[in-house]
Amino acid sequence: MKLTGDLFIGGERRQSTESFRAYDPSKGTEIDDASFFGATEQDVADACAAAEAAFLPYSSAPIADRAAFLDAIADEIEALGDTLVERVCRESGLPPARITGERGRTAGQMRLFAKEIRDGQWQKLRIDHADKQRTPPKPDLRLRMIALGPVAVFGASNFPLAFSTAGGDTAAALAAGCPVVMKGHSAHPGTAELIATAIERAVEKTGMPKGVFSLVNGMSRKVGQALVADPRIMAVGFTGSRTGGEALMKIAAERLRPIPVYAEMSAINPVVLMPEALKARGAALAEAYVASLGMGAGQFCTNPGLVMAIDGPELDAFVARAGEVLTGQAAQVMLTSGIYQAFEDGKAKLEGSPFVTKVAEGAEAAGPTQGRAALFSVAGKDFLADPVHLHEVFGASSVVVRCANLDELLSVLSELEGQLTATLQIDEGDYADAKRVLPVLERTVGRILANGWPTGVEVTHAMVHGGPYPATSDGRSTSVGTLAIDRFLRPVSYQDLPEALLPEALREGAQAGVLTRVDGAWKL
Amino acid sequence: MKLTGDLFIGGERRQSTESFRAYDPSKGTEIDDASFFGATEQDVADACAAAEAAFLPYSSAPIADRAAFLDAIADEIEALGDTLVERVCRESGLPPARITGERGRTAGQMRLFAKEIRDGQWQKLRIDHADKQRTPPKPDLRLRMIALGPVAVFGASNFPLAFSTAGGDTAAALAAGCPVVMKGHSAHPGTAELIATAIERAVEKTGMPKGVFSLVNGMSRKVGQALVADPRIMAVGFTGSRTGGEALMKIAAERLRPIPVYAEMSAINPVVLMPEALKARGAALAEAYVASLGMGAGQFCTNPGLVMAIDGPELDAFVARAGEVLTGQAAQVMLTSGIYQAFEDGKAKLEGSPFVTKVAEGAEAAGPTQGRAALFSVAGKDFLADPVHLHEVFGASSVVVRCANLDELLSVLSELEGQLTATLQIDEGDYADAKRVLPVLERTVGRILANGWPTGVEVTHAMVHGGPYPATSDGRSTSVGTLAIDRFLRPVSYQDLPEALLPEALREGAQAGVLTRVDGAWKL
Repeated sequence: MKLTGDLFIGGERRQSTESFRAYDPSKGTEIDDASFFGATEQDVADACAAAEAAFLPYSSAPIADRAAFLDAIADEIEALGDTLVERVCRESGLPPARITGERGRTAGQMRLFAKEIRDGQWQKLRIDHADKQRTPPKPDLRLRMIALGPVAVFGASNFPLAFSTAGGDTAAALAAGCPVVMKGHSAHPGTAELIATAIERAVEKTGMPKGVFSLVNGMSRKVGQALVADPRIMAVGFTGSRTGGEALMKIAAERLRPIPVYAEMSAINPVVLMPEALKARGAALAEAYVASLGMGAGQFCTNPGLVMAIDGPELDAFVARAGEVLTGQAAQVMLTSGIYQAFEDGKAKLEGSPFVTKVAEGAEAAGPTQGRAALFSVAGKDFLADPVHLHEVFGASSVVVRCANLDELLSVLSELEGQLTATLQIDEGDYADAKRVLPVLERTVGRILANGWPTGVEVTHAMVHGGPYPATSDGRSTSVGTLAIDRFLRPVSYQDLPEALLPEALREGAQAGVLTRVDGAWKL
Repeated sequence: MKLTGDLFIGGERRQSTESFRAYDPSKGTEIDDASFFGATEQDVADACAAAEAAFLPYSSAPIADRAAFLDAIADEIEALGDTLVERVCRESGLPPARITGERGRTAGQMRLFAKEIRDGQWQKLRIDHADKQRTPPKPDLRLRMIALGPVAVFGASNFPLAFSTAGGDTAAALAAGCPVVMKGHSAHPGTAELIATAIERAVEKTGMPKGVFSLVNGMSRKVGQALVADPRIMAVGFTGSRTGGEALMKIAAERLRPIPVYAEMSAINPVVLMPEALKARGAALAEAYVASLGMGAGQFCTNPGLVMAIDGPELDAFVARAGEVLTGQAAQVMLTSGIYQAFEDGKAKLEGSPFVTKVAEGAEAAGPTQGRAALFSVAGKDFLADPVHLHEVFGASSVVVRCANLDELLSVLSELEGQLTATLQIDEGDYADAKRVLPVLERTVGRILANGWPTGVEVTHAMVHGGPYPATSDGRSTSVGTLAIDRFLRPVSYQDLPEALLPEALREGAQAGVLTRVDGAWKL
């Protein structure tokens, strides 16, 4: 399939005068088989106008039709076959096995949201019947959730499929009834185009309004800025750097009509090795830790960037074993030269701290943009003294904090900013201490794990992939799992509306099988 | 009961060097029986520190204890008896019948939230069981909602009880497990003190941590600004002017760690008179309209400030009848001299528009700060031409928009900013046209009423008292009804936690009677 570099503006293909090329991080060269057009301000405005025009027909279409559209997107993504996998690998430097898995996750996520909206519970139906005898008479009130409006979604560099063009935010927004204007990530424009063609086919096959999806590209930040500033956009989904996320938050807050921004920005995902667990299985923990740290060249939002434990011979042994395993590891191609450079800078900052010891380094790079893993250690009191240790180094770099005792460990945890995850390695003998640690973690993170590693994020109902600021801009929500649909909904109440004018889902007796709160009681 | 003017800082009474007096709007004089102390920056910081210290013990206290605390607040408010009603009337100029009703609503709201948290559904429990056979193994994931942290609440001038010290936001925040630091409204400091003593007693009786509630007063805006800027505050509830709300939003967005602001700011609450309804019962509608407009001197967020209909003899008759009824009405004392002045200015601006006709005025004022009701009319095309007509005039002032036809009426509706409510007056013959109007209303408002008036806001499960910007700063929530608890909660997920460390509500089999989503299915 030949890439065209086209912009996708509400069902129409467009070119422009500016263009850019994709980059192959493995080779360190541009990919010259296609040029990708950069969107103008007019293109962005037209995409938003198309989304606005599509909003009412799309959000009021039968739920079954919207669900069929999501399923069709999943089918069309799978139908892209090896072409997709090859392109993603070329643009990201990630290996085929990872991308095949990510494709399955992306299609699965679309189908999960299709099922979720068919089930109907997302509407949060509530019915309070009238009581005309009461003084004053009690009205009939009925509530449901409706779509917010057109949504802007930004592609993420580290998940070219699962957090990008047809990724989690797009799936949740489309499921909620919101048209999506996608700002493709400039690191994988060919991937974005392939996915956009899949969505384009799904739009045609299921007869959705053309404006339900647009894709605007561009190397300039202006494209994304214009998108967030557009008055027709009603919410923003973003996964990327803290600088990028905060810039979008600022634009959104300064609009005439501010809008919610769901930005996933940064995390160092603390792992606490509790004493008994460390004693019982320090070596195994060290090996699993380094494996989790190195996955995808460490380019996960949930990468374990910080490990803490009480100092002593068991921790010495853990650090020594982790260092041994890490020393042998080959350098891995990173997603972009910018990310590679930021990784090198981050490690250099840590090395520059007088308090930090470099424990081990991975093998030297054998090509451009190859990230060399690194393991550092620092004493708890020194960690507390210098905030440099708090910052995320995106990539396979991690710091072990040696704490004098549990109180110091709790102090270190309390100093942390909001995080996506925190992990406890615990045995039964640790439970009493763990009960002191857990409340601190609950205040700080979105997901608490025991005896696992944070890098796997299950797409399911009870997942929270989110957390307090600055892990995300809005800790009240998740970007992964079915709860993510809430991001793009708001409640509307209908008072004494005649049956004929009520939304179908709220008519008397029409809730069969859909969880509904009737006069305060929950009914299925 | 003698008022002291004290600040309430985490269970401690304090005085300060600055003080101010309450004002009796009916007499236009200061009330000299007490001086109220203004909080210093240190007082605000201490209140926030106390709230932070109370957060963990309060949010992790058994739900039954928290519920008992809310019930005790309701009891103690009622125990204040006539003292409370007299003071509120004196400080607000509102009549005793209204305040007695508002007291009942305030106590009822506390008890409703007590019941709501006992029921347990607010935790939104979700459990996804592990599947160790899957490749890769599926973890056990369990989700619940937890409290955000200390919350700042601002008292509202127009509801000295129901939207103030122990009002809706306070009730929802306390129910969610969040300590509250209250910024009392300077128009009713005696009312705030009485309510604070009731809460103080409830804290003592139920053994809650002292920092769970503080009250800071002050005439200076700096008090509220310092409160919203304090890093320990995790969310803000506000009801008041758009200027005030937007100032707080700006402070919240510029914090090192931005926080959600729930500000209810302004609305003109359009009422659409559909042709058949207007024909069948124009006179009755006119009378009910003027009654709704004049309630509480028009000082409701849901006051019907805008009526629209298709022009013709029926609308002429409606306007004439409304004018007749309104002309006879006595002027009413407004809440504060500031609100009175803004009301006069707002009416003057409307009168200054070359397109606006003054239809009628109420009787002349017989005392200070008495607001004289006013009714205006404007042609639809002129309304569209000049945005001055879009602004809220807080008080008993309303504009009738004469539209040439349904299309023009839809254009007028589409031009409106976000609103709390919209009302349709309809008969069966109007249903076809109403179906064109409803989608526009759904995009614009939080609550749609048929054949009623927006000024009654039922405290129940299916109520939405909220709406798109600038009706509120965050249209994803409501300030009235049980759904309001969601404002102060965020989700946390627990992965593979041993039973002994899981929160009790999430342990296997512990969900009896509490709605739980288990492996995707809803169970009661």
